[in-house]
Amino acid sequence: MGIEARPPGRPRDADADTAILDAALELLIERGAAAASIEQVARRAGVTRATVYRRFPDKTQLLIAAVESTYGNPPPTPEIRDLEHLLTGWAAALADPRQRRLLRRLYGAFEDYPEIAAAYEKQLGSPRSDARTAVFEQARDNGELPPNTDPQVLLDILTGAGWQHLITRPDTSTPDDVEQYLRAVLHQAGFTPETRRDRAPRPIKE
Amino acid sequence: MGIEARPPGRPRDADADTAILDAALELLIERGAAAASIEQVARRAGVTRATVYRRFPDKTQLLIAAVESTYGNPPPTPEIRDLEHLLTGWAAALADPRQRRLLRRLYGAFEDYPEIAAAYEKQLGSPRSDARTAVFEQARDNGELPPNTDPQVLLDILTGAGWQHLITRPDTSTPDDVEQYLRAVLHQAGFTPETRRDRAPRPIKE
Repeated sequence: MGIEARPPGRPRDADADTAILDAALELLIERGAAAASIEQVARRAGVTRATVYRRFPDKTQLLIAAVESTYGNPPPTPEIRDLEHLLTGWAAALADPRQRRLLRRLYGAFEDYPEIAAAYEKQLGSPRSDARTAVFEQARDNGELPPNTDPQVLLDILTGAGWQHLITRPDTSTPDDVEQYLRAVLHQAGFTPETRRDRAPRPIKE
Repeated sequence: MGIEARPPGRPRDADADTAILDAALELLIERGAAAASIEQVARRAGVTRATVYRRFPDKTQLLIAAVESTYGNPPPTPEIRDLEHLLTGWAAALADPRQRRLLRRLYGAFEDYPEIAAAYEKQLGSPRSDARTAVFEQARDNGELPPNTDPQVLLDILTGAGWQHLITRPDTSTPDDVEQYLRAVLHQAGFTPETRRDRAPRPIKE
């Protein structure tokens, strides 16, 4: 990108912040929460350990901040129009190889670093879950999902199917592959796309 | 258990085998595949590292053998009578705290030790998956599941719901708790228990 003029403010600090968070996220993805260390992060970010510790009291807090930084802090409020929009968005996220590795690392971190998973869930997962269950309720009300649909159960089903995809399908899966997979899951859960239900019968030639 | 007479055969070797595999499994559950080491296993088993290396060329092979040993090698062929039997058996397994930790560790090991997950899947997962999909087919054929049920998709749904349960519900979940959870998932997937469908209407008093 070439050399850019530093913006005013506290430029050196902001540079170090970015370098530290980027390095922490890379190391989390490459090695996992247990194997990543403050020392490795400092080295990769080109700063001293003291510089890292001035910002983060320990590795857990650093990794939480790194995860938050990748999803935005605060993350944008998810806007999901309908079930089709939910499907394509979810499929795109699950087809991103880097995202896949990060999600597997987050699952793997659960046992020893539950605070990281909790932070992810609180910051990103919870508002997104609300947006998703709202879409399920809407789809149930307009007949795309069975009347006895439980939005929370359906969220567990799709989220779980995502975890399953991450360890049983290749990281080269395309958004179309993942969408087909998620669509089959939704179909088994009673999803009938509106287009299919509303399709007018073909005019009969007279 | 008191001091028992050694059985004939190669008792010392067998003792060492058991001690090594038990120690490896414990360490896998406690620390995860990345943090567990041959040295720790040897120390906990009360043998030298050389004793471990005579049996297993590396940590991966040792952990694979440890996982195999806990499920039996070869594992017993699963016999699942019907969907109710599948539900209660699955719920019992998922409500075992030690099993829960092991499963989370297996998921967590996927990124750096895919061979362990592959061995688990090949040895235990695959025959069990076959037994489960056979039950889904049977349930579909007798009307407990919708006619358009895809047994493979349903297996992904239930397996995924299991992964989701492992990181969102407490390890104190009882078999009843887990069964209720899995039952809600199956219900959303169109499961209608036979007892409900076949219940005769109550006789009307005349």
